[in-house]
Amino acid sequence: METFFSFLEKRVDDCSSLLCIGLDPHINDLSAPTAASALDFCLNLVKQTSRYAAAFKPNAAFFEVFGAEGWSALKEVIDAIQAESSRMGSMIPIILDAKRGDIASTAEAYAKSAFEKLDADCITLSPYLGKDSIDPFLNYPQKGVFLLCKTSNSGSGDLQDILVTMDDRSLSMEGDSSSMVNRPSSVPLYIHVAKLAESWNTKNNIGLVVGATHIDAMKRVRATAPNLWFLAPGVGAQGGELEAALQAGLRKDGKGMLIPISRGISRAEKPGLAAAELRDQILHIKAQLNR
Amino acid sequence: METFFSFLEKRVDDCSSLLCIGLDPHINDLSAPTAASALDFCLNLVKQTSRYAAAFKPNAAFFEVFGAEGWSALKEVIDAIQAESSRMGSMIPIILDAKRGDIASTAEAYAKSAFEKLDADCITLSPYLGKDSIDPFLNYPQKGVFLLCKTSNSGSGDLQDILVTMDDRSLSMEGDSSSMVNRPSSVPLYIHVAKLAESWNTKNNIGLVVGATHIDAMKRVRATAPNLWFLAPGVGAQGGELEAALQAGLRKDGKGMLIPISRGISRAEKPGLAAAELRDQILHIKAQLNR
Repeated sequence: METFFSFLEKRVDDCSSLLCIGLDPHINDLSAPTAASALDFCLNLVKQTSRYAAAFKPNAAFFEVFGAEGWSALKEVIDAIQAESSRMGSMIPIILDAKRGDIASTAEAYAKSAFEKLDADCITLSPYLGKDSIDPFLNYPQKGVFLLCKTSNSGSGDLQDILVTMDDRSLSMEGDSSSMVNRPSSVPLYIHVAKLAESWNTKNNIGLVVGATHIDAMKRVRATAPNLWFLAPGVGAQGGELEAALQAGLRKDGKGMLIPISRGISRAEKPGLAAAELRDQILHIKAQLNR
Repeated sequence: METFFSFLEKRVDDCSSLLCIGLDPHINDLSAPTAASALDFCLNLVKQTSRYAAAFKPNAAFFEVFGAEGWSALKEVIDAIQAESSRMGSMIPIILDAKRGDIASTAEAYAKSAFEKLDADCITLSPYLGKDSIDPFLNYPQKGVFLLCKTSNSGSGDLQDILVTMDDRSLSMEGDSSSMVNRPSSVPLYIHVAKLAESWNTKNNIGLVVGATHIDAMKRVRATAPNLWFLAPGVGAQGGELEAALQAGLRKDGKGMLIPISRGISRAEKPGLAAAELRDQILHIKAQLNR
């Protein structure tokens, strides 16, 4: 049976691209502060960039801010991506960037909203509430989730970098009384999240959000989770370097990473050209990395 | 200047209540699976329970699941609470239970959505992305946030209970080589979050979500954050005990805790009566605790 990530890999092969086009209708980038203008902004981007898109990633916040009209626009954007995919003969996965996270019965409603009402293929989620808050999403066998692991913002360290004591603590605390051995094994919280995601990923439907702004962290997460897909925001506008990110995060098969770009494409004079160039730049770096 | 928590305390005094009425139009509790039915459900609850409500807490998920019509219904519910408040002559704070959390420019859009478009007074947020993801909300001087700290679900332990190494680690690791002293000081992640919230609360606009299903955790959070307001879900439907929760979480002034109840009221034959009884039960327990 097809899972979200097998669907994504098929599209990645079809378009030779790891580019995820962010649909972020920032109010400052619109011709007018209206849902209709947000819709136009996104439809134009979809039309110009779909050939190079391994996935599209609409960000719920920039629609939600327009209330009911914004939600209608979001649904129209998703419908338009699906229509464009059908026209091209290659379906493009849609990742709803919503970063939701709530307890079970509430999570069920969010899952129904994202996967049935909006018909997105995948959603970003916070791991803070634990496995039972993720399960209602994982129960959709053909849908996927990207769990926040190490986010691209500078404040991400407040929680995500804090050292946590891992399971081998009880072992290392026993018997030997020397200072070196007694020190419990500690890893940053984001590594704990990566390990949880690995253990929860029994149906090939979990990936991780790992910011391209934290290259060392990305290397550690890749070492912890050799096979999971990463959604790696932060290239361009937030200062992340494309080559370093790909080197740190690509899987051995040259896949396993989506590079979301929003403003770097939407603010370009010719968004289609900008997307094509980014797609080719990624291909070039991959070839150089000889993977 | 009035802050969210001074506003809340005024309302708590006005109605002698710590009850937060949850507006959770679960699809199973509706006469029909429509936004119109969700709206009726909430308007009826607001009308019947407003006298006893220290606050109302609409849950975004149960509106979002109806798409654009759901968002219109959510706005109508908030408008109705404000109209009812004006009629009574005592404004009732509105807490949007949304558990959002995203990086800065996106968080700005969520804050604008909650505080300007919907005109809620307060919002629940995830702390996972750190301080800079909270700031856009804190920048509204008269609005408030409840940060997820220790949530009521059983899976909350996956992240929130994991032991983290606190700042005094470097001190305790130095000098002495005995096993006892070398053990770094460790606390659960939720205590780290409580400490962060204390340090971030420079404008009296941060509270914590602490589940009434985890009494020991609540005691520890209260010891860590003696003055912060708690939103303490889980009484009733999730098995939390009201008396134990109040004993663990009330501040010395007999305030500092909101007890959200949803199904325990909405599914009662007479929701107004159920709310009145819960309000009185809380007053009775408070009197017994002699605070």
